[in-house]
Amino acid sequence: MKYLIIFLFASFIASAQIKKEQLDVMPWPQNLILTEGTFTLTKSFKVNITGAPNSRIFNGATNFLRRLDGRTGLFFDQGFITNTNEVPTAQLQINCVRSGKIELYEDESYLLKIVGNKITINATTDLGALHALETLLQLLQNNNNSYYFPNVIISDFPRFTWRGLMMDVSRHFMPVDVVKRNIDGMAAVKMNVFHWHLVDDQGWRIEMKKHPKLIQMASDGNYYTQEEIKSIVKYADDRGILVVPEIDVPGHGSAILTAYPEIGSKVVTMNSNTIENGKQSAQIETYSVERNAGIFSPTLDPSNPKTYQLLNEFFDEVCPLFPGKYFHIGGDENEGKDWDSNPKIQEFKKKHNLANNHELQTYFTMQLIPMLKKHNKELMGWEEIMTKNMSKDAIIHSWKGVNEGVPAGKSLVDAVKGGYKTVLSNGYYIDLVFGVEDHYTVDPMPSNVTLTDEEKARILGGEATMWSELVTPSTLDSRIWPRTAAIAERLWSDKSVTDINSLRKRLKTISFRLEELGLTHIKSKEALLRNISNNQKNVALEDLSNICEPIKKYSRNKGGTEYQMYSPLTLFADACTPDATDALGFDLAVINYLNNKSVENQIVVTNYLSKWIKMNVDLIQLSNNAPLIQPLLPLSKKLNDLSELLLLKIDKKQNVDPSILNDLLEKCNTKEHADVELAVYNSLKKLVQA
Amino acid sequence: MKYLIIFLFASFIASAQIKKEQLDVMPWPQNLILTEGTFTLTKSFKVNITGAPNSRIFNGATNFLRRLDGRTGLFFDQGFITNTNEVPTAQLQINCVRSGKIELYEDESYLLKIVGNKITINATTDLGALHALETLLQLLQNNNNSYYFPNVIISDFPRFTWRGLMMDVSRHFMPVDVVKRNIDGMAAVKMNVFHWHLVDDQGWRIEMKKHPKLIQMASDGNYYTQEEIKSIVKYADDRGILVVPEIDVPGHGSAILTAYPEIGSKVVTMNSNTIENGKQSAQIETYSVERNAGIFSPTLDPSNPKTYQLLNEFFDEVCPLFPGKYFHIGGDENEGKDWDSNPKIQEFKKKHNLANNHELQTYFTMQLIPMLKKHNKELMGWEEIMTKNMSKDAIIHSWKGVNEGVPAGKSLVDAVKGGYKTVLSNGYYIDLVFGVEDHYTVDPMPSNVTLTDEEKARILGGEATMWSELVTPSTLDSRIWPRTAAIAERLWSDKSVTDINSLRKRLKTISFRLEELGLTHIKSKEALLRNISNNQKNVALEDLSNICEPIKKYSRNKGGTEYQMYSPLTLFADACTPDATDALGFDLAVINYLNNKSVENQIVVTNYLSKWIKMNVDLIQLSNNAPLIQPLLPLSKKLNDLSELLLLKIDKKQNVDPSILNDLLEKCNTKEHADVELAVYNSLKKLVQA
Repeated sequence: MKYLIIFLFASFIASAQIKKEQLDVMPWPQNLILTEGTFTLTKSFKVNITGAPNSRIFNGATNFLRRLDGRTGLFFDQGFITNTNEVPTAQLQINCVRSGKIELYEDESYLLKIVGNKITINATTDLGALHALETLLQLLQNNNNSYYFPNVIISDFPRFTWRGLMMDVSRHFMPVDVVKRNIDGMAAVKMNVFHWHLVDDQGWRIEMKKHPKLIQMASDGNYYTQEEIKSIVKYADDRGILVVPEIDVPGHGSAILTAYPEIGSKVVTMNSNTIENGKQSAQIETYSVERNAGIFSPTLDPSNPKTYQLLNEFFDEVCPLFPGKYFHIGGDENEGKDWDSNPKIQEFKKKHNLANNHELQTYFTMQLIPMLKKHNKELMGWEEIMTKNMSKDAIIHSWKGVNEGVPAGKSLVDAVKGGYKTVLSNGYYIDLVFGVEDHYTVDPMPSNVTLTDEEKARILGGEATMWSELVTPSTLDSRIWPRTAAIAERLWSDKSVTDINSLRKRLKTISFRLEELGLTHIKSKEALLRNISNNQKNVALEDLSNICEPIKKYSRNKGGTEYQMYSPLTLFADACTPDATDALGFDLAVINYLNNKSVENQIVVTNYLSKWIKMNVDLIQLSNNAPLIQPLLPLSKKLNDLSELLLLKIDKKQNVDPSILNDLLEKCNTKEHADVELAVYNSLKKLVQA
Repeated sequence: MKYLIIFLFASFIASAQIKKEQLDVMPWPQNLILTEGTFTLTKSFKVNITGAPNSRIFNGATNFLRRLDGRTGLFFDQGFITNTNEVPTAQLQINCVRSGKIELYEDESYLLKIVGNKITINATTDLGALHALETLLQLLQNNNNSYYFPNVIISDFPRFTWRGLMMDVSRHFMPVDVVKRNIDGMAAVKMNVFHWHLVDDQGWRIEMKKHPKLIQMASDGNYYTQEEIKSIVKYADDRGILVVPEIDVPGHGSAILTAYPEIGSKVVTMNSNTIENGKQSAQIETYSVERNAGIFSPTLDPSNPKTYQLLNEFFDEVCPLFPGKYFHIGGDENEGKDWDSNPKIQEFKKKHNLANNHELQTYFTMQLIPMLKKHNKELMGWEEIMTKNMSKDAIIHSWKGVNEGVPAGKSLVDAVKGGYKTVLSNGYYIDLVFGVEDHYTVDPMPSNVTLTDEEKARILGGEATMWSELVTPSTLDSRIWPRTAAIAERLWSDKSVTDINSLRKRLKTISFRLEELGLTHIKSKEALLRNISNNQKNVALEDLSNICEPIKKYSRNKGGTEYQMYSPLTLFADACTPDATDALGFDLAVINYLNNKSVENQIVVTNYLSKWIKMNVDLIQLSNNAPLIQPLLPLSKKLNDLSELLLLKIDKKQNVDPSILNDLLEKCNTKEHADVELAVYNSLKKLVQA
């Protein structure tokens, strides 16, 4: 009888009309019309491709089939999908008019129809078709015993042409497989630009055959061979993604200058001996690969012809590895200290009528333009490159905001009004470990400024920036995903798609599904907690991790010197993530309870409080055999103390002295323990003040 | 007060004398003497290296430091360890007399002393020093707030010189990072031979610049570039590991013959048309990359000079990629069907006085010896290559046993008596998914045969074989680890080290620690279960996975055609592993209870039974939204029914009809559901029969 009810219930679900709210599609399509009925998947499901697409669609469709098979366990008969139009009767028919080009403004649109027993994808290019396949995977539904797609008509295209993710592989090197799985993640949410920050103070990461000193002296052995770079570019191309390399100059120069100190700007401080010995002219400052985080003074010398000669040679070797049209030359955070203190450079400025260091940097940057032009590349740089003489061909990468003392996105408006194309990253700094909402609400199109259509068209899109001072290959994915999927939606979907609750609900499924690409944002946390708990059963530790978040902005690793680049990022703060899951659940429970103090609503809240009291006891127990848990006990104790008192107040209806309660509450508002903060503080405050 | 007690207890632990039984070292060292006292780790811990070692020890020691830092979170000051003897006062002093060679019989011994505030490692070669560092990592202890090593003197060396792991990357391709992390795992348990099975019916995996057809037609795009191969060989070398490549010929030839059908043995069956058209001589059989598992007939033609010409060219291109002395040419499972039916080959046999196919294969194999000799390589092959005319330089790889209808290890004895060196793999077939005990009890040195010292010396060691018909990059690690650590111990430690309880206890920690190398044997299971449960909280599914094991031997994928090489291995059987953890716990509980039916012992048993009853309810609930759980319900139901009745019998002391009980028990002894079996059956049987 029990079974019968279940089966009846199940078939009820199967035949129920699916609603848009049930679909966990991200980015949300431009147009989506649900119609009645479903398409049920079976073992005989097949794919056929027609038209004149690039061969990447055959790999893409084969990968699609394998992912669908992995989810459903249906054991599809079809193995590899080829270009021989071998299954004209296949249920899924893909037609592409022409081969897609991996460049901006390419047609990425698609039309996906699921009607009756037929699925069709029509796209101008294979890039659109690849997007359609990702949408199709996201449309997958199931009841208790089968998998199906809803009947639907989707016509879709991106709002912005630049939907990027930047990955810094200098501060912490990221092996090839880590890069590739994140490129898969990008493709799954329809991003199309991988900005690869390959050079910074902490390391040069590109194999250089003609300048081997760069990897011998400035990579610690952690670099990509040229073949690996080509394989990553090919991997990205296969997924419709453009790779934009970055060599950050003239600042952030420690690694380059470790290998080539002769093009540095710093003047050697002479002692009397060296001068007496007449060695002045032979003296060169030495540099070393930076181990700390921060802004450092090593800067290339813009007055030295050798600087340009070497950069020209670097570009000659690096540019051919990247078929794309753009090359990012950094240009950020050059404070000019070593320029100011170098008489030769001061003289050079005077000679060339350069009024200040900004003009000097423009002079420098302008020399790079023809070097890149030669390789058919356009220059892109962080917003500091935008000064009055900068070429209008350059793309301005807008990154500064309130943190840097300027209005958010100011440089973006300045750029488009000045005639530059621009990409927004301010607001998309995912390394700040803010919650997803903070990024989702940032739109590249400014709402408070009136722009002409021409100016608007210069806003290419946006880019999430994953700086890697505080991430390793083990934690990188959890800092990128799932939040970057929300940024991807902001850059693809219509401006009106802004419902944060819908986002959070869909993001939960999207995050789960990203795991099938090998991304480790979920399972790496489990491994980190296992290490912290010293392999003890660790529900309590998990519970704590679900209400704690790493401290935000750049408040961790104060001054950049507390941690070195080789420091262990295996701590509790590394296991925790933004948008702590239980904290979101608790927020909702408190809102519901304060709206309606029903018994049911009260129980949900008090269950959390009781859980945290038990958690504290368990953590103390665990800590007996796990030194890494010790630093968490003070925080857990604070939450325990407040929870106990709140239980008295709520459950027992006792009068609790508000000043004691407030005192305990404020103790929970700490960032002093283990580099984390309690993400439940705000809701606790509501409870205390209720 | 609570805190005070904890701290007192903790300091009691810290000062207590450590016992050998507490140490989770594997392989267990040849000599280990514990002395009083401990060495406590602090942030200022440093390493210094002296002597004349190979540079691999500097990487190795740096990796050691990072792993230790990752476990302890101590933020060691020291970044990179170099050869400049820069920290003469370091607490850990490593001295190596000379550079180790990556070859058999090299000195791998070490002496590790931890006394007072000093740790010294003395080794003839850096290979011994690397082993010492792994031992040191395994010696790490902790109390509640600090990490320390016990004072100890260990002098250690391997029992066998060949301690191998074979990885089949043909059936399922394994990406570079998967190979590398498993090489790290090997090094962690002191294994020293990586046998790389690169070619089989299902694919050719080596980039061939002069014969590109092999990868174009027979790899599905899944192959290692020559640069990747070199980087893996270098990676292995850095960890003291020899790489032995295998190209399996003349059988297992589907991939080679897909590219070069002209050297195949199969005769084309002519129809009258082709003969009439006089096209007979131009007709060649076509082959295709195999998608199923099994033994297939495509075999190279030993009578065709082109066969040898091509193989010679293949070896010319492949041999230089591998600096090691050995090349494995397979030679197994050639059933000779295509030889028997080919008149040209029959004629060839007669002409060369070859009595049978074995002699023909020997003829074939003998042609390969000079091809390899040219590159300074010795030939190794599976035991089938050992026939009376085979060169005594060849190494015989013993693999057959009871499964194949011969006594276990027969060929090993035959080989050494026949004057051949040999390596044992029978008994180490980890792809059969047997429990660890089955492998641990197999010793390469036969106990039932008397061998001379010379014959014994020909037994080089053993090799775990990871055939990959039923593994993917996601599940490979869980099929290799942790069981291969037990095989590593068998091959390194003294023959007398055989205590299975000690093994199991140590293996638990070793398995946990292997995770720090990036191995996914633990976390991949969690991800697979997440997929099966459709992202629902899945304690019940985990509980079931902890008492289920994949069905053993080659009973999964019956006939080799149920699954194809592209089939989804994302099922429950893929998530389950040998040595199911809860089953081991239940075994012990039942033994204790049957020895002494105390209330305490009874509760432990009945708690399991109750857990499985609740599990069944929860699984039904989960299955409403997870089709992949449906196939597990019948098994869970059977266990539920028996558990309910056993509870009545044990808890309520009710009389239960033995025949009903036996009937329910036998239903639990099934292999019919979802490719798994209940690992608790034997202990349930004991309970039923008690």
